[in-house]
Amino acid sequence: MSKNVAIVGATGAVGTEMLRCLETRNFPVGKLHALASSASAGKMVQFKDREITLEALEGFDFAGIDVALLAVDTDIAMDCAARATKAGATVIDNSSAFRMKANVPLVVPEVNGALLEERPRLIANPNCVAAIMVMALAPLQNLARISRVHAASYQAASGAGLPAMRELEDSTRAYLAGQKFEPKVLPHPYAFNFFSHNTPIDPETGYNGEETKVMRETRKILDLPDLRISITCIRVPVLRAHGIAMSVEFDRAVTPETARGALAQAPGVRVVDDPAANRFPMPVEASGIEEVLVGRIRRDVSDASGKTLSLFVCGDQLLKGAALNAVQIAERLA
Amino acid sequence: MSKNVAIVGATGAVGTEMLRCLETRNFPVGKLHALASSASAGKMVQFKDREITLEALEGFDFAGIDVALLAVDTDIAMDCAARATKAGATVIDNSSAFRMKANVPLVVPEVNGALLEERPRLIANPNCVAAIMVMALAPLQNLARISRVHAASYQAASGAGLPAMRELEDSTRAYLAGQKFEPKVLPHPYAFNFFSHNTPIDPETGYNGEETKVMRETRKILDLPDLRISITCIRVPVLRAHGIAMSVEFDRAVTPETARGALAQAPGVRVVDDPAANRFPMPVEASGIEEVLVGRIRRDVSDASGKTLSLFVCGDQLLKGAALNAVQIAERLA
Repeated sequence: MSKNVAIVGATGAVGTEMLRCLETRNFPVGKLHALASSASAGKMVQFKDREITLEALEGFDFAGIDVALLAVDTDIAMDCAARATKAGATVIDNSSAFRMKANVPLVVPEVNGALLEERPRLIANPNCVAAIMVMALAPLQNLARISRVHAASYQAASGAGLPAMRELEDSTRAYLAGQKFEPKVLPHPYAFNFFSHNTPIDPETGYNGEETKVMRETRKILDLPDLRISITCIRVPVLRAHGIAMSVEFDRAVTPETARGALAQAPGVRVVDDPAANRFPMPVEASGIEEVLVGRIRRDVSDASGKTLSLFVCGDQLLKGAALNAVQIAERLA
Repeated sequence: MSKNVAIVGATGAVGTEMLRCLETRNFPVGKLHALASSASAGKMVQFKDREITLEALEGFDFAGIDVALLAVDTDIAMDCAARATKAGATVIDNSSAFRMKANVPLVVPEVNGALLEERPRLIANPNCVAAIMVMALAPLQNLARISRVHAASYQAASGAGLPAMRELEDSTRAYLAGQKFEPKVLPHPYAFNFFSHNTPIDPETGYNGEETKVMRETRKILDLPDLRISITCIRVPVLRAHGIAMSVEFDRAVTPETARGALAQAPGVRVVDDPAANRFPMPVEASGIEEVLVGRIRRDVSDASGKTLSLFVCGDQLLKGAALNAVQIAERLA
């Protein structure tokens, strides 16, 4: 029952992790095609004990491909998804091109994996913040209806790709050596700095593109179209794990203990909530692992009714926020 | 009308900035005493064009001192404040020892400087997050009553002193060189990492000491004892400027334009809110300046009534968050 797989954008931060996830999770890979730009074609990437030659996406024939995992920009994703689905492949797309289309499921398998039972041919992989956020919110939905979410993100460089991760390291190295550094990938200095996510601001709402995506996608994944939600997205100088501080209001009182219990049971979630040791979710522990870490679970003191909880979440942006979730979708379909 | 000044803790991150603020703001300094631990006594610090010899706090006689600026830990501050006030000095204390005492004013001059007209002999300087936060909240109080605040902080190393700033730099340098680093000042790795503020967690509420201070002190400074407020305090790997994402609910609708106008008029505040250039408050621009930067001023979309605004604030932790505010208090008293 092996599947022929194409990874599109195999040299990027997410594509690289997709290859690794297929390997570590023992996905039943038949033929494997690693696709990239023409400039990278002919170079090699590692998969298990073999070397794979990178092929150019341009002109690639998707015939015979069962699953295409796309980790490329929106424009390329749209073109590529059309070609791949036409050739009969099932497409799992990590871009934002299709996420809000009514007929395209936006899936986090632990949350709304049931949508895959209809065997859709095109599945959207969510925004990285939304994916990590819903992992903490969905288990709480069984306790009470979520009516409002206030959130602030602490986002890693990996969300802007490998060049941004390198820019963070290079600019920090320069700073520590007392040297000047001109940012090329991001619009602001990144060394020992944080800044509002640099997607364009919607002049109507004042929210940036990232924030709008997170809010819309969270509503869609949780199937709460009227959810009142607000987020501020900030890029902080860490490499590959996002954090989210959240205040979650329910339609009735929920105790921290009940919430902790529900989260402890939830697949893909690890509760890290140790007040005595002052140990809570943080990037150095969330990076490189599959689970999303949840902690600081407490009653929000600004709501005397007990209907609001505060919590802090941390998850690997490249894994649950992108590559792992895509491969988990492929697994559910396989 | 010059004043004899003692800086207690003159070698620390805040004490050093106090000396610099007295200098740059041309405070009318008469005799200047720079006090530190016995270990530092005899060393020199620079003030204007002269060298000052550090004196030991232990055994120091505060007689003849007009103003004592304390930048030391709570225990030392309590002992020192008793000695200095007994000797006739006015004490401005940066520790948390006296902040919540009913008979001690907790002052941010731009906000509640009128409390200084009664010429108190002991004045508390607020927690750094609270000081920066109220600079953005107070100008909005004139527009409508603030009923609720949701906040998440992005806190700099300087809040834990010079050793933490050095640990951030040293551990980052080690990380980039691929070397191991054992944290000594903070309980968690700091290089490319963030973590929940390491003050102890109150087992009753689940909030840590820093969060509790910020919530209580914000209520006291704004004179809103019933303000519903919740904050999550996170240390991020930046050196000396804090950020705060805030959602502020009022008792009636307030437009972003009105709020922006009020903030633009407020002394000590600079509005940095340029969606077209994607330029908002960030540490590289807030560090080393006196103003608190405010931006991302928008209607909170989770509240359809228009009564809630979101905004992002950034201020120098060592200046408005500590030393500058203390010196501004001294100026108002002088």
